[in-house]
Amino acid sequence: MIDLTLIGIGTGNPQHLTLQAVEALNAQDLILIPNKGTGKDDLAGLRQAICAEAIRGHGQTGEAPRIVEFDLPVRDEATQDYRQRVDDWHDAIAEIWWQTITTHLPEGGAVGFLVWGDPSLYDSTMRIADRLKTRTEIALRVIPGITSIQALTAAHAIPINTINGPFTITTGRQLRDAGWPEGTETLVVMLDGACSFQSLEADGVEIWWTAYAGMENEISISGPLDEVTDQIIETRAKARADHGWIMDIYLLRR
Amino acid sequence: MIDLTLIGIGTGNPQHLTLQAVEALNAQDLILIPNKGTGKDDLAGLRQAICAEAIRGHGQTGEAPRIVEFDLPVRDEATQDYRQRVDDWHDAIAEIWWQTITTHLPEGGAVGFLVWGDPSLYDSTMRIADRLKTRTEIALRVIPGITSIQALTAAHAIPINTINGPFTITTGRQLRDAGWPEGTETLVVMLDGACSFQSLEADGVEIWWTAYAGMENEISISGPLDEVTDQIIETRAKARADHGWIMDIYLLRR
Ligand SMILES: C[S@@+](CC[C@H](N)C(=O)[O-])C[C@H]1O[C@@H](n2cnc3c(N)ncnc32)[C@H](O)[C@@H]1O
Ligand SMILES: C[S@@+](CC[C@H](N)C(=O)[O-])C[C@H]1O[C@@H](n2cnc3c(N)ncnc32)[C@H](O)[C@@H]1O
Repeated sequence: MIDLTLIGIGTGNPQHLTLQAVEALNAQDLILIPNKGTGKDDLAGLRQAICAEAIRGHGQTGEAPRIVEFDLPVRDEATQDYRQRVDDWHDAIAEIWWQTITTHLPEGGAVGFLVWGDPSLYDSTMRIADRLKTRTEIALRVIPGITSIQALTAAHAIPINTINGPFTITTGRQLRDAGWPEGTETLVVMLDGACSFQSLEADGVEIWWTAYAGMENEISISGPLDEVTDQIIETRAKARADHGWIMDIYLLRR
Repeated sequence: MIDLTLIGIGTGNPQHLTLQAVEALNAQDLILIPNKGTGKDDLAGLRQAICAEAIRGHGQTGEAPRIVEFDLPVRDEATQDYRQRVDDWHDAIAEIWWQTITTHLPEGGAVGFLVWGDPSLYDSTMRIADRLKTRTEIALRVIPGITSIQALTAAHAIPINTINGPFTITTGRQLRDAGWPEGTETLVVMLDGACSFQSLEADGVEIWWTAYAGMENEISISGPLDEVTDQIIETRAKARADHGWIMDIYLLRR
């Protein structure tokens, strides 16, 4: 029997942790941290730092939680179908989780995962956790965390919605493929490695863009889309080169 | 010169506070709490309890932050136009803020507002804060908080999006007036006093509904919309009668 807790940790600012997350971290026997490898090394490091700062207590076994890094498998690019490739990859991760958990907690216990932002938002941890249910009894608990959407709106001190207006969250790929969705004035775009706002008719659109939202090196740019597009593209390329990785998010309003 | 900090406090669970919010609360000279009057009294009480628990330090003046409740003005129902009525109401609130701040901090200082959930999401505090800018120099800072959207998905331990799929956040009124927006499988509905999911073609739609999300008296119901509609309507009516107020939110997927 495994108690699995997915703990939202916010978007890179250790101060984003909620009191509930601190408590949950301290209540684990085992904490698993993915080692994402080249480029995003500082993210595994950041998770370690968050644990080191937050953990004061001890898990169900009476010991301080053990923190274990595991290597993420590589996606098999030979698999043509995208859904299938992702599915296979999640299966492989679940297998590594299972090996790691049974090695360290052969009798079961409380296992925690630190999830970037909030566990419900564009994150596969919950789907991987579901796969363990075929192997043993799993009690799954989710601790909400500050999302990059909120880190974005806080950085600019703007409301996400117009008064009582709806808004849509989407991805860079969706924006390129499907364009601006009908019936909404406000779009938030995540998972965009390609500055997909370039595919839009810029006229009458405002953008609020932030990279490393909530982190020390946060960068924000806002303005009419046609006026700031080039600046965002250049700033993004430079920051990415400087850090070796980038995470960015933006809100569009028309 | 006034430093205005809007502090997201989460959705009623004191453990939703982030470390950043705790720090921000402690850094204020003055904390303003709206006294919402009849029915929602326990919400003002809850804000007081959160302050009492979190505040250990002292503001810019070296004193512990002073906590002051203020009465919200009543909306003038004689004003026909909805936007105008809301605008007038926000003006009136800004006036009360101004009176309260200048009474307690005639020399200026750090003023904090506790905002339910996240300050960017269907909340007027930021718009009211903007109105003070015509009266004095305002430095506005926003501390993100756990939203009711995340409290909902955590309660059900579900992802908000399908894999890489977009999703739309909307209000009960919008759902009734505009129906299901095109191009999205997932809808989150807030601000719905009327169980507006009844206006939908229920076939093939799943619902995840939660009232008092994150709070002790949290209630969750999920299932195929046609099967659980009546149960949600009854549960909601009863809970509302028992508590004197209700806040609920739901996710629909088809
Ligand atoms: C795999 S998703 C994870 C989202 C996360 N669960 C959350 O709640 O924000 C990664 C995407 O989130 C956004 N993101 C995450 N952290 C960010 C940050 N600190 N600054 C800007 N964008 C961020 C980016 O759009 C990135 O492509
Ligand atoms: C004026 S909006 C404020 C939203 C808030 N700023 C947030 O971040 O969640 C109020 C609406 O939020 C939702 N809500 C807020 N707190 C909630 C809770 N604890 N449980 C369920 N719904 C909640 C309800 O849909 C309610 O009508």
